[in-house]
Amino acid sequence: MNEVALVEWIKKHAATPRTRDLILGIGDDCAILRPRQNEDLLLKTDPLIENVHFTTEMRGEIVGARALSRSLSDIAAMGGEPRYCLVSLGVGPRHDERWIKAFFRGLLRVARKTNTVLAGGDLSHSTRETHTDIMLCGAVPKGTALRRDGAKPGDILYVSGKLGKPWDRPIHPRLELGQQLRGLATSCMDLSDGLSLDLTRLCKASNVSAQLEYIPVFAGSTLERALSGGEDYELLFTVPAHKKAPAGARRIGIIQRGQPGRIFFEGQRLTPRGYDHFATSESPQRTK
Amino acid sequence: MNEVALVEWIKKHAATPRTRDLILGIGDDCAILRPRQNEDLLLKTDPLIENVHFTTEMRGEIVGARALSRSLSDIAAMGGEPRYCLVSLGVGPRHDERWIKAFFRGLLRVARKTNTVLAGGDLSHSTRETHTDIMLCGAVPKGTALRRDGAKPGDILYVSGKLGKPWDRPIHPRLELGQQLRGLATSCMDLSDGLSLDLTRLCKASNVSAQLEYIPVFAGSTLERALSGGEDYELLFTVPAHKKAPAGARRIGIIQRGQPGRIFFEGQRLTPRGYDHFATSESPQRTK
Repeated sequence: MNEVALVEWIKKHAATPRTRDLILGIGDDCAILRPRQNEDLLLKTDPLIENVHFTTEMRGEIVGARALSRSLSDIAAMGGEPRYCLVSLGVGPRHDERWIKAFFRGLLRVARKTNTVLAGGDLSHSTRETHTDIMLCGAVPKGTALRRDGAKPGDILYVSGKLGKPWDRPIHPRLELGQQLRGLATSCMDLSDGLSLDLTRLCKASNVSAQLEYIPVFAGSTLERALSGGEDYELLFTVPAHKKAPAGARRIGIIQRGQPGRIFFEGQRLTPRGYDHFATSESPQRTK
Repeated sequence: MNEVALVEWIKKHAATPRTRDLILGIGDDCAILRPRQNEDLLLKTDPLIENVHFTTEMRGEIVGARALSRSLSDIAAMGGEPRYCLVSLGVGPRHDERWIKAFFRGLLRVARKTNTVLAGGDLSHSTRETHTDIMLCGAVPKGTALRRDGAKPGDILYVSGKLGKPWDRPIHPRLELGQQLRGLATSCMDLSDGLSLDLTRLCKASNVSAQLEYIPVFAGSTLERALSGGEDYELLFTVPAHKKAPAGARRIGIIQRGQPGRIFFEGQRLTPRGYDHFATSESPQRTK
């Protein structure tokens, strides 16, 4: 099978009637889309690399589903609705045509479930590792995107689920919750690198400090992993104290004045620890 | 240096006053942009992989400039004006912090020259090869994007420059020419995989055949390379016979009725040959 035939196969399987603003999809130099009025667009790119984010043996369906779900989690974190994705796939020698098709089947299953249209991308070979990059375009009503820089002292801190989950489980991007949080949450982000590191980032961006009260640990996991493990893909968000958080949100602390980015838990200052791709000693390098 | 410090460095170097429609750039879950009225947006993603698209020894500046220029060539091919880019970079063991910074310096130099704002991306490590993926967002006035499916029998076929150029030379994306071709060219695409393969694609998309009359071969190159070498990044386009092509355009043939995708040159049918990432025997695998 050659590149043209593979692209034709993908095009056929990606076909969907949901192309409302898509003028032109797979097959030209660029995808063309016509933005709707009174919307802001969200853009995100997220890579997935063999031996870093997934193992060689993982099934193509799982890797494809995971690749798109991780990017969808970022759209969820901004309160967005996904629209289009572009997929770059560089295929290494340990993966064959069957695996590539399985990858796209897994990805397209998630795409259909979330109303995301595969609008283009690129296929190439790679001499060693397989790697993929998902470019996602989403949308929110003008001015309503959730950012990480709006948390205020007194706001209550929430997460959308338990933390410290196994890294290779299926990801369920919190798209519905993210959309419910528009106009309600003062800040929001998704947990991809571990609570302690991601909360530090949120607090730094918002110029606030945080007091953690309670950490919802996933059954069978540890507090350490709930605090500094990555790949949880839950939403971390703040809501003013006088407002009601959506059902299912778990209160984990409160935002306070103080040195921007500092976090306290059980009377102690918490060192931000999580996954850093370029750390030299601070954090252990692991498959994330 | 850790990931946070590296992102801060990039953010500082990417700062620019040209953020007209960009509401939020580097540092949150997604970039937020506010589309202008009466414009269509163009989306493109394009990877660059060590040992496939560049060699380990190539300077970071060159690789960064090349990565962005290749994607810009696709925006040029649609008649677009570049707006934002997102950059994914997975860094392998043979490249260090100095190389990463050089990569971004090279990329940002091209970005400044072309009014492209670096709006976000992702940094990660890779266990073997370095690879990068550039996601580019451009724009055209509503309905004016140049596509590859509009060539008509009788249209004259042009290229924007000589073909068969060395693959590792600097790329000059034909942005200005692409914009001039809006409302004039009936079809357009960029030459990335070789004239014979790319022209076949254009003809298939437009349901036409083509007669080549003349191939402008780059000095020191060969006809074979001009026909089937990749990485030329010139524009291939068609203009109705009664209209004047822009200065600098080189007439190379004419569009005709016939079996869609068939190309003739010097009385013979030309076999489409060029770079196919998944070809098994047809085309030699080479560093492109």
